Amino acid sequence: MSAPKKVVLAYSGGLDTSIILKWLEIEYGCEVVTFTADLGQGEELEPARKKAELLGVKPENIHIEDLREEFVRDFVFPMFRANAQYEGLYLLGTSIARPLISKRLVELAAEHDADAVAHGATGKGNDQVRFELAAYALNPEIKVIAPWREWDLSSRTRLLEFAEAHQIPIAKDKRGEAPFSVDANLLHTSSEGKVLEDPAQPAPDYVYQRTVNPEDAPDTPEFIEITYEKGDPVALDGNPLTPAEMLTALNELGGKHGIGRLDLVEGRFVGMKSRGIYETPGGTIMLEAHRGIESITLDRGAAHLKDELMPKYAELIYNGFWFSPEREMLQALIDKSQEHVTGTVRLKLYKGMVQTVGRWSDHSLYSEEHVTFEDDAGAYDQKDAAGFIKINALRLKLLAARDRRVK
Amino acid sequence: MSAPKKVVLAYSGGLDTSIILKWLEIEYGCEVVTFTADLGQGEELEPARKKAELLGVKPENIHIEDLREEFVRDFVFPMFRANAQYEGLYLLGTSIARPLISKRLVELAAEHDADAVAHGATGKGNDQVRFELAAYALNPEIKVIAPWREWDLSSRTRLLEFAEAHQIPIAKDKRGEAPFSVDANLLHTSSEGKVLEDPAQPAPDYVYQRTVNPEDAPDTPEFIEITYEKGDPVALDGNPLTPAEMLTALNELGGKHGIGRLDLVEGRFVGMKSRGIYETPGGTIMLEAHRGIESITLDRGAAHLKDELMPKYAELIYNGFWFSPEREMLQALIDKSQEHVTGTVRLKLYKGMVQTVGRWSDHSLYSEEHVTFEDDAGAYDQKDAAGFIKINALRLKLLAARDRRVK
Amino acid sequence: MSAPKKVVLAYSGGLDTSIILKWLEIEYGCEVVTFTADLGQGEELEPARKKAELLGVKPENIHIEDLREEFVRDFVFPMFRANAQYEGLYLLGTSIARPLISKRLVELAAEHDADAVAHGATGKGNDQVRFELAAYALNPEIKVIAPWREWDLSSRTRLLEFAEAHQIPIAKDKRGEAPFSVDANLLHTSSEGKVLEDPAQPAPDYVYQRTVNPEDAPDTPEFIEITYEKGDPVALDGNPLTPAEMLTALNELGGKHGIGRLDLVEGRFVGMKSRGIYETPGGTIMLEAHRGIESITLDRGAAHLKDELMPKYAELIYNGFWFSPEREMLQALIDKSQEHVTGTVRLKLYKGMVQTVGRWSDHSLYSEEHVTFEDDAGAYDQKDAAGFIKINALRLKLLAARDRRVK
Amino acid sequence: MSAPKKVVLAYSGGLDTSIILKWLEIEYGCEVVTFTADLGQGEELEPARKKAELLGVKPENIHIEDLREEFVRDFVFPMFRANAQYEGLYLLGTSIARPLISKRLVELAAEHDADAVAHGATGKGNDQVRFELAAYALNPEIKVIAPWREWDLSSRTRLLEFAEAHQIPIAKDKRGEAPFSVDANLLHTSSEGKVLEDPAQPAPDYVYQRTVNPEDAPDTPEFIEITYEKGDPVALDGNPLTPAEMLTALNELGGKHGIGRLDLVEGRFVGMKSRGIYETPGGTIMLEAHRGIESITLDRGAAHLKDELMPKYAELIYNGFWFSPEREMLQALIDKSQEHVTGTVRLKLYKGMVQTVGRWSDHSLYSEEHVTFEDDAGAYDQKDAAGFIKINALRLKLLAARDRRVK
Repeated sequence: MSAPKKVVLAYSGGLDTSIILKWLEIEYGCEVVTFTADLGQGEELEPARKKAELLGVKPENIHIEDLREEFVRDFVFPMFRANAQYEGLYLLGTSIARPLISKRLVELAAEHDADAVAHGATGKGNDQVRFELAAYALNPEIKVIAPWREWDLSSRTRLLEFAEAHQIPIAKDKRGEAPFSVDANLLHTSSEGKVLEDPAQPAPDYVYQRTVNPEDAPDTPEFIEITYEKGDPVALDGNPLTPAEMLTALNELGGKHGIGRLDLVEGRFVGMKSRGIYETPGGTIMLEAHRGIESITLDRGAAHLKDELMPKYAELIYNGFWFSPEREMLQALIDKSQEHVTGTVRLKLYKGMVQTVGRWSDHSLYSEEHVTFEDDAGAYDQKDAAGFIKINALRLKLLAARDRRVK
Repeated sequence: MSAPKKVVLAYSGGLDTSIILKWLEIEYGCEVVTFTADLGQGEELEPARKKAELLGVKPENIHIEDLREEFVRDFVFPMFRANAQYEGLYLLGTSIARPLISKRLVELAAEHDADAVAHGATGKGNDQVRFELAAYALNPEIKVIAPWREWDLSSRTRLLEFAEAHQIPIAKDKRGEAPFSVDANLLHTSSEGKVLEDPAQPAPDYVYQRTVNPEDAPDTPEFIEITYEKGDPVALDGNPLTPAEMLTALNELGGKHGIGRLDLVEGRFVGMKSRGIYETPGGTIMLEAHRGIESITLDRGAAHLKDELMPKYAELIYNGFWFSPEREMLQALIDKSQEHVTGTVRLKLYKGMVQTVGRWSDHSLYSEEHVTFEDDAGAYDQKDAAGFIKINALRLKLLAARDRRVK
Repeated sequence: MSAPKKVVLAYSGGLDTSIILKWLEIEYGCEVVTFTADLGQGEELEPARKKAELLGVKPENIHIEDLREEFVRDFVFPMFRANAQYEGLYLLGTSIARPLISKRLVELAAEHDADAVAHGATGKGNDQVRFELAAYALNPEIKVIAPWREWDLSSRTRLLEFAEAHQIPIAKDKRGEAPFSVDANLLHTSSEGKVLEDPAQPAPDYVYQRTVNPEDAPDTPEFIEITYEKGDPVALDGNPLTPAEMLTALNELGGKHGIGRLDLVEGRFVGMKSRGIYETPGGTIMLEAHRGIESITLDRGAAHLKDELMPKYAELIYNGFWFSPEREMLQALIDKSQEHVTGTVRLKLYKGMVQTVGRWSDHSLYSEEHVTFEDDAGAYDQKDAAGFIKINALRLKLLAARDRRVK
Repeated sequence: MSAPKKVVLAYSGGLDTSIILKWLEIEYGCEVVTFTADLGQGEELEPARKKAELLGVKPENIHIEDLREEFVRDFVFPMFRANAQYEGLYLLGTSIARPLISKRLVELAAEHDADAVAHGATGKGNDQVRFELAAYALNPEIKVIAPWREWDLSSRTRLLEFAEAHQIPIAKDKRGEAPFSVDANLLHTSSEGKVLEDPAQPAPDYVYQRTVNPEDAPDTPEFIEITYEKGDPVALDGNPLTPAEMLTALNELGGKHGIGRLDLVEGRFVGMKSRGIYETPGGTIMLEAHRGIESITLDRGAAHLKDELMPKYAELIYNGFWFSPEREMLQALIDKSQEHVTGTVRLKLYKGMVQTVGRWSDHSLYSEEHVTFEDDAGAYDQKDAAGFIKINALRLKLLAARDRRVK
């Protein structure tokens, strides 16, 4: 790979990506364009602009964008249509944010005529894979620079020395090492590393950042109603909300009730197991609500097919293949299934739990007429069931007869 | 089908199966053998013996058996190795009990030289299918009689008239109709019908029978440790327990903390949707615990394959295909995966929730050496990740280049 | 089910459906509308009109339609995009025709204000299921009459007696029984029953109807080129053809070279195994050609996902679930994959075989630059492979280390 | 990676691996142990011993083994139980041989106290992955050396210079470059590269090595009978054969009749597409025969589950994951299904084709009694089918009613 001439850097404004900014200039003698996105991580972005300016980035090379609506509408919601959970439990909060960042990096590279993009993910995690696969899928010619895999700043001391040597301001609280590492966006906060590295030990309370401890949550349940249209939530207690507004509101509700905490050991794409603490308050509510509305509006055949394909779909997102033909094929299948996933779900929020307690819809497939224990006025002929069972049993009988014969 | 000469009846001792007993004798002029099993439903069985005697069944034709250990060991535990959940949520408490009952019915039919078995399930539900497919799979010559599909006792009034006409005692509280229908065994209690038939309406509190309302559960969490061996729980807080003892103990713990309530609309095999209230306190704890111990002892490739096949496996059990080649093939695959699923999980029980907070095992695949944010002493070469990503990206790049070329 | 008033009958003009026509009038006192479709079965349809008139059907109640283009375009081609083969081998020639016939029956019922449709399939086969599921899926109120399951004309003698009693003309060669039963359309001819019922015995030569015996096929191979656009064949040797023209032309070529014979024992949806002789000359060529063009234009991830889902898709069609949400979901996934399946395949036809011998496309993903044994000018860095393997091996190494530790 | 001290090399005796032998000694100063296996590639192995001695390898370091029986029994046969075909067509002839070679390399490394193994596969192909994943899975500490990824002998000229410089004899016909590259074992011959690199061009005739051109095959068909026991072929025309004898005999038959040629473009695990010419005469016969015997002895539910999992299983083998938990889990599932796959298949071999023409078995599930067009004496009640269809249609009707209501 020849040296890059101009690089678009995913820049948070923090110490690590500031060091990367400087290192790119020094190592490659290249011009750096910074990209800072608001994905709902809950931090002010304007300080990132000032920090970039301070480090000498040209104003026209500094990009700060609010991507919250796009993030939820085009990434989070499509994924939730699938009820995606990685390894049965994880709601993919980090995984789903990376492709959008890469998409904007590549688009900005085109605008700036830059030949490379750079990110601050390490060589041990999944995020490097997600950033890079997305970038290559969108521009096969792009160069991707992952300084953590390249440089020799392998200890905290070396990093701080580099920062000092290059006039990068170091916030006081960054002198010491953080006791764990955090990633956040509108969907979730994840924490991992250091104090969390022993999976036998419970996560300390101070790790949790956007949910209260269920013990500290309100002592009385709260009930809410979420309305869906074609698989996406569109109104809360009757009030229409945009995608990002919806997720923000559900995060608040979920956080208040201690909903969405997950302590998980998962299998990384790079082959090792790691332990993460995830907080996905709004997402946890959405998963339950979506299953609730699907339960009355989605046909059994459709639902079971979705369920069988969900693990594969979740794995693709986890592994960084959002922009791949197979993810898009599965999305086409999933979206096709959501045409009638429209209606309202009533949920109980209490002490870390969210539970569906009612659901209704004009699109409902639930037929009280058929299922009733009372007289069904001929809607269903129980004698049909006898034939149904006999025919289903036929191959089992033939098997049993064979087994008797040859044993 | 020619008329049966001797029938083994799944007999609960209750009013409905007592009517069936009498009806079989009258309708077919056949001898009836009764079979009453303790699957942990929590009722005394000896009254069933007396009731059968009272109805004129010969003592040698009355069978009462405690099947709890067999039920948990050979049915519940194998199923939990798969983390089976039907439609993403249901722990299959009713489904898994039916094959065992059918197995014993068929075995007793052989012992008594009976040519038929009979059950009390209706023609609208899944249980008829489960009873009958299991029976036919075990004896292709057996006749199965499902009186609810045959007789004309289609209203409560007609049933009571029949009972009175044949001296079947009617408990006072059975004069009126039950407000909902219940099935119970050591794994769960399910309630459905009547007051529960409108899925928009919350289930009334009095429906719940083996779990307290989370609001009424203790205000302080309880922590427990479950030890697994080859995928099955074998000790609780260090004390070895038999399978049925384990499930009994976990039911108590779960019930006390309001764990395992589920309000679900599901797709029945016979084609309609129905709404059920399930209480699976011990099972809900076991699911979380099993996922917890698998998370450190099961390889990613194995775990993902299991996850992809789980919905199919759960569907087979739900639909009544426990005794089918495909369920047995899947079981072989699942059991193969559990050889190292051995270790201990620490769980927090609180107000309806169960959460893994720690897990450890001699068989752990978690490698702190590899995952650490600290110096890993060369266990993992981050440069390898660059090649890994490049090769994974190659086909995506070729796709992107093609798309550019032909668009 | 109340008696039908007006019935649309799938009418071939043959003896059996003529008897059905009469039987419907007599049994139900209903008016009969006949529907005869040209799906490429290779028979004149006008005689069916005369026959219906002769049997007293009102001219405005007689429908004869050429559905060949619709059949191939909207049913056969979409199915071939999936490379669908039931039980690994069967190209679903009968299965794919039934939904279209049912669709027209239901549409004609609406036009004629008829309340029922009827078909001539027996109660042992798959076709009854396919006809009826399709009809119910398109009109939930429709009645479906399957005379073979209802009447008591259970022997050839009884049928002939009925025909004679009702002035239904009996062709001389129909006096005796056919030695096997045939179904045909533009996609295939199937033969089954009677002389074919012993699967140990080879099918007699006279069973085959649209393919020559390979031994009698030309002694020199023939080469053809098929051009695809978005997954469908559009030109043969450079000449654009409509869907039905294409299949007709390929049938001729395949038939001449003895291509597409299949002697199969298959598992019917109704639970028994049956033996069929299938001739699918054009379809066999299309399967090979489609795989050939996909091999250079379809990404590996997309192709493998399709392959994994194909058996399920084929099973749905075989079982009669063409008009089901899950088939439509799979179709959305498959169609999504075909956007670039465009290009040309060269095939060798010889003595029963069809083989791809060349393929090219502007949409090709094959990169000689990458794959070459010669110098690749840096397109691919072999060192990347080392990292790729190391990372893929990591979990296997952790497993091996664990196994050493605990064994 | 520290330098290896003793290396076990997969040594063919040819020029390339001879160069590798010498290069290992020079590059690493290490002792080399050679391993040459007879997997049925059809070459004498003793010359490899002489060649190794000539190059200075100590006699006790030279291993030559006949692995044909183990290869077929423990690798080929288990794979054929699954009807494995990669990308729908490829019988995995190369893929299945690599794990066995790695297994022996790792075992010999343990015997010789060697710390590394080495192979002659390039950095562009799948074989490097297969060799190395297998090695790491069997010994997590082993070093693997892949000289083609390391050295700078990147042209034919450089290789020959190296050979001359180190007294490695060069056969006359190796002076020029081979027009394509070949791999062979008892299951297949594969050819790729160079003259085959343009997938639009037909493969020249001289590429084919173990099958005659179908045009040159006998003009009269040959019929054979293969007997299976539990999924494996055990006798040919009634004569019991060992696994390797069986495959050898079928290769001869297939080769003579031009059976098993495949011209394929496939997706490599390393991300590029490549074109291969495969000849798998015996394997092609076995695939057909195995499907033939399964068709009467394997239940539909079992067969369909196998079919759905086959692509995944084939992909695992292709990608080098033979020694992985997920392959072993799938094998457990597949083997479970084969318990009754016992019986005999009659096949017609003619001009490139193999077709099942008859099959019989004591374990057959085919029931003429059920399937017959004749009177079935009550084995099957056609009325049951009506109920079967009605119940299967219920959800489709509910869907249709919903669609009418809300559209």
